[in-house]
Amino acid sequence: MTTKTPDISARLAINTAVARKMLTGFIADEISKTRMSRAVIGLSGGIDSALSATLAAEALGAQNVLAVRMPYRTSSPDSLSDAEQVIQALGLPSITVEITPMAEPLFAQFPDMSSTRRGNIMARLRMTILYDQSATWGGLVMGTSNKTELLLGYSTIYGDSGVALQPIGDLYKTQVRHLAAALDIPQSVQTKAPSADLWEGQTDEGELGFTYADVDQALFLLVDERYTVEEVVEEGFARSFVEKVWQRVKVNHYKRTMPNIAKLSRRTIGHDFLYLRDYV
Amino acid sequence: MTTKTPDISARLAINTAVARKMLTGFIADEISKTRMSRAVIGLSGGIDSALSATLAAEALGAQNVLAVRMPYRTSSPDSLSDAEQVIQALGLPSITVEITPMAEPLFAQFPDMSSTRRGNIMARLRMTILYDQSATWGGLVMGTSNKTELLLGYSTIYGDSGVALQPIGDLYKTQVRHLAAALDIPQSVQTKAPSADLWEGQTDEGELGFTYADVDQALFLLVDERYTVEEVVEEGFARSFVEKVWQRVKVNHYKRTMPNIAKLSRRTIGHDFLYLRDYV
Repeated sequence: MTTKTPDISARLAINTAVARKMLTGFIADEISKTRMSRAVIGLSGGIDSALSATLAAEALGAQNVLAVRMPYRTSSPDSLSDAEQVIQALGLPSITVEITPMAEPLFAQFPDMSSTRRGNIMARLRMTILYDQSATWGGLVMGTSNKTELLLGYSTIYGDSGVALQPIGDLYKTQVRHLAAALDIPQSVQTKAPSADLWEGQTDEGELGFTYADVDQALFLLVDERYTVEEVVEEGFARSFVEKVWQRVKVNHYKRTMPNIAKLSRRTIGHDFLYLRDYV
Repeated sequence: MTTKTPDISARLAINTAVARKMLTGFIADEISKTRMSRAVIGLSGGIDSALSATLAAEALGAQNVLAVRMPYRTSSPDSLSDAEQVIQALGLPSITVEITPMAEPLFAQFPDMSSTRRGNIMARLRMTILYDQSATWGGLVMGTSNKTELLLGYSTIYGDSGVALQPIGDLYKTQVRHLAAALDIPQSVQTKAPSADLWEGQTDEGELGFTYADVDQALFLLVDERYTVEEVVEEGFARSFVEKVWQRVKVNHYKRTMPNIAKLSRRTIGHDFLYLRDYV
């Protein structure tokens, strides 16, 4: 689909030792600032949550990271067994909470619901369960979103993006794969096709309509290197592809910000009552 | 509990005609920017959602505002009937979706769950239903949080605070009452004791440990007028009360910001990839 100058993928390469050190430091720091010492993470069987759990276990100690598996009736059995491999490899405490009995009453009330609607409901039920476990386990809900997903808005708002911190949110999917390889994530997790597993046969790349390898290069040029769409096209990418990607970044921006508050007073939350998340 | 200089409540007074005009303009604007023309709102039977629905109906036309009632088994019958009054008075299309069958399987799996945990689950299930209706109705999910709740963090993260816009987020509860009176919200909604109705007998003021009248004055001085805790105490408020309020504002700040992303690259979402929500 595209001709690329070979050095873009080289520029995407990260120093995995530095990334590992910075990300475990970030997790330890963020959690200790809240005077907690534990984390809760939803393990899907995919590479993003496996990498996030590995970093959390290294930062906090495996015994302080609760892995939660939340299968739906149609979830792939591989998702469960891949998550189990990560749990075993790291030695994490874990529980399994089925979302099926929570989802079915709502699905039944709206029987003509699309698979997208069903998938979004499933993602939000999982957030609900993780936050509930967070309350009883006494740990923060770890996010598992990567930079590619966050930029493309390839997530469910208040679902998988409803978390307390985003440790791998500045790593493109390509970079997640590099770091996962460096940290010896189980092979089957590293090699499987990325999928949200919200319906049978779903794959990220099928749904998005392009590969992570391509889109990560385009996003890197557009975002990190501040190229214009025109300049990315000049690097050999198809114009329609670059325009589609940049459009997705823009229309999904609302998922990366707090809801707007109408300003009426002299000091309004989000306008002029502004602090960093961890200012306290 | 406190002696107040009389002019604080006068300084909290708003021009209800101006507020009405600005808030209906905000709602119309925010929704048209997304190329939609409709809204979805959860009606609890309380004054915040009643006021928000009234403003939305004025901004968009009543036929474009879907009211959703989401009772739980133990919800007060008054909540349903008060919401019904608002629906009738405004002429809103409406549906009722019970959360009981979705909540019970999770409650059953953790039978010793506290009422706080149960309440948070209920708030998140309601968000899940509202977003699902938003997808099929083609409208944005209207927030109903006021400034008092947002500052005190008196909300469920990714539950009632999981919305697309916050029209009354810059109005203290006291100001919500003024505007609701000016807009002729049904009397029983205006006069009932504020309650999230997450468990039987719950009232906001009972749970918070102070009245809205008191806390709104203290918050107004601390936030809008930038008083120090010491200066608020000098106005006649008890030191322990002011300290408790300011502490709540600080520890709940995380609910008013996006999750932190660990910075690794030269351009990171939330650090240096920053745009206003509606920049597109």
